[in-house]
Amino acid sequence: MDWVLFFLFLAACFSAGVTGALFPTDPWYTALRKPSWVPPNWAFPVVWTSLYFLMAFAAARVAPMEGSEYAVAFWAVQIALNAVWTPVFFGLRRLKGSLPIMAALWLAVAGTTITHWQLDWIAGLALAPYLVWVTIAAGLNVAMWRLNPDQAPLEPAKL
Amino acid sequence: MDWVLFFLFLAACFSAGVTGALFPTDPWYTALRKPSWVPPNWAFPVVWTSLYFLMAFAAARVAPMEGSEYAVAFWAVQIALNAVWTPVFFGLRRLKGSLPIMAALWLAVAGTTITHWQLDWIAGLALAPYLVWVTIAAGLNVAMWRLNPDQAPLEPAKL
Repeated sequence: MDWVLFFLFLAACFSAGVTGALFPTDPWYTALRKPSWVPPNWAFPVVWTSLYFLMAFAAARVAPMEGSEYAVAFWAVQIALNAVWTPVFFGLRRLKGSLPIMAALWLAVAGTTITHWQLDWIAGLALAPYLVWVTIAAGLNVAMWRLNPDQAPLEPAKL
Repeated sequence: MDWVLFFLFLAACFSAGVTGALFPTDPWYTALRKPSWVPPNWAFPVVWTSLYFLMAFAAARVAPMEGSEYAVAFWAVQIALNAVWTPVFFGLRRLKGSLPIMAALWLAVAGTTITHWQLDWIAGLALAPYLVWVTIAAGLNVAMWRLNPDQAPLEPAKL
């Protein structure tokens, strides 16, 4: 394992994750109606931090391999979409408008997992929890959009 | 040139760039005091679109090469930071808080340009305008922070 490479990919992860720290969830998110199976608030930073380490681990294993160009390209797509979803959901409060981004993220994570798995099953396995988690997150995004039909997006242009 | 690979990297670019379309600049940005050398508004989408094509071109050339792992890792870091800067500046209106992200982006773009250049001078050359542009953008960010000392960040928690 090339640790410099691992920390570079980890830097990409935490660059994306900084939006999670900067965009506040309270009191808006707390007031939203949520499905019964919503994970507790403490789970989100714990899960995301773990997933970021797993993503960086998978990329650091696969990137030096021959034929890894599609795997790293998918990885780049998923990290960009990962960075974007939080500001659109929490920043613009777009419960519906964040759905296409979530759908694109799901596809990018699926593509990342498959292309990593083809080169290295350990990297693929490391990404599997991420695919499970974005599936849960996508279900949560859909459920919150449906449960809060009266919720208007924030309009920063009017502030 | 592998066009599927090119379009995957281009998808990463436009995923990051979607924040530029979603976060409105008016009327807040228009009202900010700006330095005399601020580029005209039309220049930003034109320049960014051009840079995204150049970034995808550079990555699609370099990613299939042997020893490209640092180049693609830097590329992933820069695209994540590229996605994050816009929501922090325009979404949270953090003239000062966006500076560390801009500084990190500048370093990531410099690292991306150097690592691409080492493998393929054409890819390095394609990234040079990006490095020039983030240098201008960083100067603009600093200038707007200094020229608008009375500008308080938006506090979404209070909305």
